Amino acid sequence: MAKVKVGVAGYGTIGQRLADGVAKQGDMELVGIADMAPTLAIRALYEKGMPYDLYLVNGADTAKFDEMGIPYKGSFQDLVDQVDVMLDSSPAGIGLKNKRIYEAAGVKAIFQGGEKNEVADVFFHGYANFEKGLDQNYLKLTSCNTTGLIRTVDALDRAYGIDKVAITIIRRVADPGDYNRGLTNALQIEKAPTHQAVDLMTIMPHINATGILVHTPVTHGHIITVLATGKNGKITKQMAMDAFKDHPRIRILRMEDGFLGNASYFKYGRDLGHERGDMYEIGLWENSIVESGDDIMYAFVVPQEAVTIPETMDCIRAAMHMQETREEGTSETNKYLGIGKFKAMGLG
Amino acid sequence: MAKVKVGVAGYGTIGQRLADGVAKQGDMELVGIADMAPTLAIRALYEKGMPYDLYLVNGADTAKFDEMGIPYKGSFQDLVDQVDVMLDSSPAGIGLKNKRIYEAAGVKAIFQGGEKNEVADVFFHGYANFEKGLDQNYLKLTSCNTTGLIRTVDALDRAYGIDKVAITIIRRVADPGDYNRGLTNALQIEKAPTHQAVDLMTIMPHINATGILVHTPVTHGHIITVLATGKNGKITKQMAMDAFKDHPRIRILRMEDGFLGNASYFKYGRDLGHERGDMYEIGLWENSIVESGDDIMYAFVVPQEAVTIPETMDCIRAAMHMQETREEGTSETNKYLGIGKFKAMGLG
Amino acid sequence: MAKVKVGVAGYGTIGQRLADGVAKQGDMELVGIADMAPTLAIRALYEKGMPYDLYLVNGADTAKFDEMGIPYKGSFQDLVDQVDVMLDSSPAGIGLKNKRIYEAAGVKAIFQGGEKNEVADVFFHGYANFEKGLDQNYLKLTSCNTTGLIRTVDALDRAYGIDKVAITIIRRVADPGDYNRGLTNALQIEKAPTHQAVDLMTIMPHINATGILVHTPVTHGHIITVLATGKNGKITKQMAMDAFKDHPRIRILRMEDGFLGNASYFKYGRDLGHERGDMYEIGLWENSIVESGDDIMYAFVVPQEAVTIPETMDCIRAAMHMQETREEGTSETNKYLGIGKFKAMGLG
Amino acid sequence: MAKVKVGVAGYGTIGQRLADGVAKQGDMELVGIADMAPTLAIRALYEKGMPYDLYLVNGADTAKFDEMGIPYKGSFQDLVDQVDVMLDSSPAGIGLKNKRIYEAAGVKAIFQGGEKNEVADVFFHGYANFEKGLDQNYLKLTSCNTTGLIRTVDALDRAYGIDKVAITIIRRVADPGDYNRGLTNALQIEKAPTHQAVDLMTIMPHINATGILVHTPVTHGHIITVLATGKNGKITKQMAMDAFKDHPRIRILRMEDGFLGNASYFKYGRDLGHERGDMYEIGLWENSIVESGDDIMYAFVVPQEAVTIPETMDCIRAAMHMQETREEGTSETNKYLGIGKFKAMGLG
Repeated sequence: MAKVKVGVAGYGTIGQRLADGVAKQGDMELVGIADMAPTLAIRALYEKGMPYDLYLVNGADTAKFDEMGIPYKGSFQDLVDQVDVMLDSSPAGIGLKNKRIYEAAGVKAIFQGGEKNEVADVFFHGYANFEKGLDQNYLKLTSCNTTGLIRTVDALDRAYGIDKVAITIIRRVADPGDYNRGLTNALQIEKAPTHQAVDLMTIMPHINATGILVHTPVTHGHIITVLATGKNGKITKQMAMDAFKDHPRIRILRMEDGFLGNASYFKYGRDLGHERGDMYEIGLWENSIVESGDDIMYAFVVPQEAVTIPETMDCIRAAMHMQETREEGTSETNKYLGIGKFKAMGLG
Repeated sequence: MAKVKVGVAGYGTIGQRLADGVAKQGDMELVGIADMAPTLAIRALYEKGMPYDLYLVNGADTAKFDEMGIPYKGSFQDLVDQVDVMLDSSPAGIGLKNKRIYEAAGVKAIFQGGEKNEVADVFFHGYANFEKGLDQNYLKLTSCNTTGLIRTVDALDRAYGIDKVAITIIRRVADPGDYNRGLTNALQIEKAPTHQAVDLMTIMPHINATGILVHTPVTHGHIITVLATGKNGKITKQMAMDAFKDHPRIRILRMEDGFLGNASYFKYGRDLGHERGDMYEIGLWENSIVESGDDIMYAFVVPQEAVTIPETMDCIRAAMHMQETREEGTSETNKYLGIGKFKAMGLG
Repeated sequence: MAKVKVGVAGYGTIGQRLADGVAKQGDMELVGIADMAPTLAIRALYEKGMPYDLYLVNGADTAKFDEMGIPYKGSFQDLVDQVDVMLDSSPAGIGLKNKRIYEAAGVKAIFQGGEKNEVADVFFHGYANFEKGLDQNYLKLTSCNTTGLIRTVDALDRAYGIDKVAITIIRRVADPGDYNRGLTNALQIEKAPTHQAVDLMTIMPHINATGILVHTPVTHGHIITVLATGKNGKITKQMAMDAFKDHPRIRILRMEDGFLGNASYFKYGRDLGHERGDMYEIGLWENSIVESGDDIMYAFVVPQEAVTIPETMDCIRAAMHMQETREEGTSETNKYLGIGKFKAMGLG
Repeated sequence: MAKVKVGVAGYGTIGQRLADGVAKQGDMELVGIADMAPTLAIRALYEKGMPYDLYLVNGADTAKFDEMGIPYKGSFQDLVDQVDVMLDSSPAGIGLKNKRIYEAAGVKAIFQGGEKNEVADVFFHGYANFEKGLDQNYLKLTSCNTTGLIRTVDALDRAYGIDKVAITIIRRVADPGDYNRGLTNALQIEKAPTHQAVDLMTIMPHINATGILVHTPVTHGHIITVLATGKNGKITKQMAMDAFKDHPRIRILRMEDGFLGNASYFKYGRDLGHERGDMYEIGLWENSIVESGDDIMYAFVVPQEAVTIPETMDCIRAAMHMQETREEGTSETNKYLGIGKFKAMGLG
């Protein structure tokens, strides 16, 4: 069977990782990536010897690329014309413009969380609604926090039925290396309800969700607390653990093992030798799980740079109908990304 | 009527503010403060012209005080012998030792949140259990987070009856000026349930409470989210606002007015010209209040340096039986501390 | 003699402190302040009972002020028409527009460091070039870092003659309460030479100055290191101390006293009970002074919010010819601001 | 020729990278690493499939390793008995104890910067004094800041002769993942002169060095400014660039390329796909270089986690007399670590 051909638009924090993710899928081919300026990310790609082909979007300063000796294969249109599906991780708002190019070329496209919902026909999460994505042309991924959140709520919901959730998002305010945004000695609160709760309800309309978000001055890893109310009576700590512990994209952490917060998790990803130190799994603290009457409360960390990559691979699988069901789709993605092996080693 | 004579042990972050608080009470007299070394706080007291008399605890390096020319009135025992009640804000653990001195002198004492519960006969909060403190000899204040938390939960409970609460504490990790503790680019999670929830249940045993605490790298103002479940059906946003809006120690904030987070609140206290920029009130965001089914969720900021001062003044009033009821006790405190005037001006 | 009448345009971080500074000068009268929106600073002014009269600039949303019940005295023009001199601390760029209004009204004006040099005829520093400001109409203050820097270099220069300086500025990136700028876990370097070195040469053209600036994620207090080369041979540590120790606007700090960094200095200002915790003096560490061959190296902290206030008062004195010489001018300012009394107490 | 056998004591931040560094040297063999507890670093090693053999030091809790299923090869003594040279990156102070074991076994040892100088016969830097290390038994590496600093000073010194340097170190206060140290919204100054200047003089006794160090709340990358005075007259910006631009372990950065500070440099290492995102080179900003009279000033970033690895490899080469000269020794290290290839690509 021919490999599915994939292109990536926008080689920023997410785009770099999408490209890496596609390159690891045995049944996909990364045709190339597109960007507009010789950013540090492109410079690093060049220093690495151009493992991915580069295409330049309209308006790119080709002279600058030439001057630095960075080779490119062609235009954005050239890239689009070769692929089955485009992953669009352009800056927010650009995706909508790009969509016309995809439509004209008859190419499917998957947009990231920053883009408005209107850009897509389906709002997608690999575990929660894989089948809704089957054969669709324009899909949008949940954002990093929502992706991690839904992994946990979906796990509880399938096991016990969930009626409602109330979340508190302790958000990292900038990515490592960001100089265009940041907070210094300040927490910043957003108007409630936070969009992640609203987004969860779009994907899982049978659940009532609300929540509050506070930005904090750190660069790697949101921490989210969830209070979940079951549909069918009490959910105990043991029941919650049972639902979480076999999920390939959830690592169970314990503070006594040294996982003291988001910084430990980031360091662990680096020490694992992962490219860029990335983690695809969220980390959920066993010691955070507490019962509140019949409800269950827990906390987890979301490695924001890479967490949506697996669900985006799932999304390609659904859109291209490479697999039939969520089990098959997510399991192929997991296999190629090396997700879940730690489970068998007893490492959470 | 003779003024109640008060001493303060430990002139650190809390002790400085306790002394200021007592000095403002028209029916109390601050006899003096006690400390052990010429810290920056003592140095500032000296530069200000010694508005409060200083007593030296056992083991103090008197030579150093002499060398700097800082005058002192006598020993710790000298201070204790002159007062009706001691406010003990010594470093954690010292209060228990000091208690023997207070007992020997027949002097009442009020301990701060850092001390173990065993040090006291009553765990006290001005609004939640004023009457329990009446005529007691050894009392302990709730910690800063618990003090703020109970203000809000008590307000809802008296109005509508509360069955349970689940809280997320986004904690500031150090005070301004701290060099002995701190986090850099890291969130740190604690084992759940967090002690503030347990403490709330000690004060309000009819309520089920649990929660999760995450330390964040900021120095001024915890933010707490609360999900509260009523005893008697739904609590609407309007009902919650009704309960909060007349509480003298709760300011209602709106993001559109410029209150974007804990740093805005800290700045506002400084701009108000308050001594040290302190705020006695917590700040609760109207835009954070959301309904979660029948439950109500909200967020507020706790100015950790000064928030327990009013409740400590209440505690003196109860221990010395200066007033009879919570309404009378808290209202005298508020009058002397200038709390609540902003309510009449329509400022939250 | 009639008091000099002063107005303040822009009631932000600097404007608030300019107003406070003028209000403390026994020979000046603060006619009022002008701003455009009911910011938190204006809200605090209102909560304090409007100690200063408010005037609204063109385009202000008067309805909002009316709605909140905040009283105002008139228009910006009304304010300008009543004063002898305007202190302009509007956002950068606005000062130049305002200048036309000042010119038309025949009113002198003093601009802050954010405005371009072209706005003024004299670039002013109270200690370095007081006499140049005499009777001038349009003057500009040095920025916070430059103001502190020149205090130290001028002190050395008058004592021993300085040939050149090389500085490293470890800059705080945002003010307390700022949400519109900030860095998170990042140092940011600027192109060298940094403008403060260039500005120093404008004020002290006989000195060669250069330097490098790095922004750091803190909110209160720049730290600057200086390497100064004498004109006439070696400058020893003792010689440097002799030059610094009697300067009223330089506090000598020692780490063993608890002054561990910028955060200690900020805390000390709060503990002194200063309005907003402000410090007018820079703090220079005795333990930082080291000899580098014949050159001398030292470090000091610049409390950015208030450090330029004294020099601005000096500037009014020069522009209005209230005093004749730098000694007389700065000494009147110091008297009214309470600067230098700590020297007599042996506190640095 | 038989490979040189190397062991690593202490598998922390530095030890992990030393092991990786040795494993990349074609003429060395990493026999194993030793540690005491199943830290996150060891856990990651296990999850990676134990690419390096583990030995347990005395007092290690073997039961814990057994429980987790982490295999180990033997005792610390077993490791020492198999190697030619030990790299000791134990916590400060332990190295001195370990030295007795190395002496008894007749094994050479190289200690890291945290250990006291007395532990070693030679204080070593690959570029500055390679030949001093030849055939020595006990050597100590310069610390991270000193290592980077000496690269630049040595380059200038060999080209033009350096008489003295004055440095300002803007130090990162903690490593990524550290929870046991940190600063929050605070700069902290150390007593001058800072030890890195003193250490430089130990290695390069013909140079006069002094400086000031300020800790800042960031986790990745110190920034150092240097003012260097030549022995033989003026050093221009061009002369400095000439000395720096061909140094394999110095990258030339420009702000306009996106290298805005230490966070850009850290991100770049991650984007390069380096293990753990590590960088062996320091990054020196071309736009920071300015002339101060005849002196030259510049700034660079020191990636503290990995910067000493190349010089430690050089040190093994010297101690084992694998090469004869600094040119040969450093060039072999560079070859195996992939250092300097970017120079040929025109990337700084």
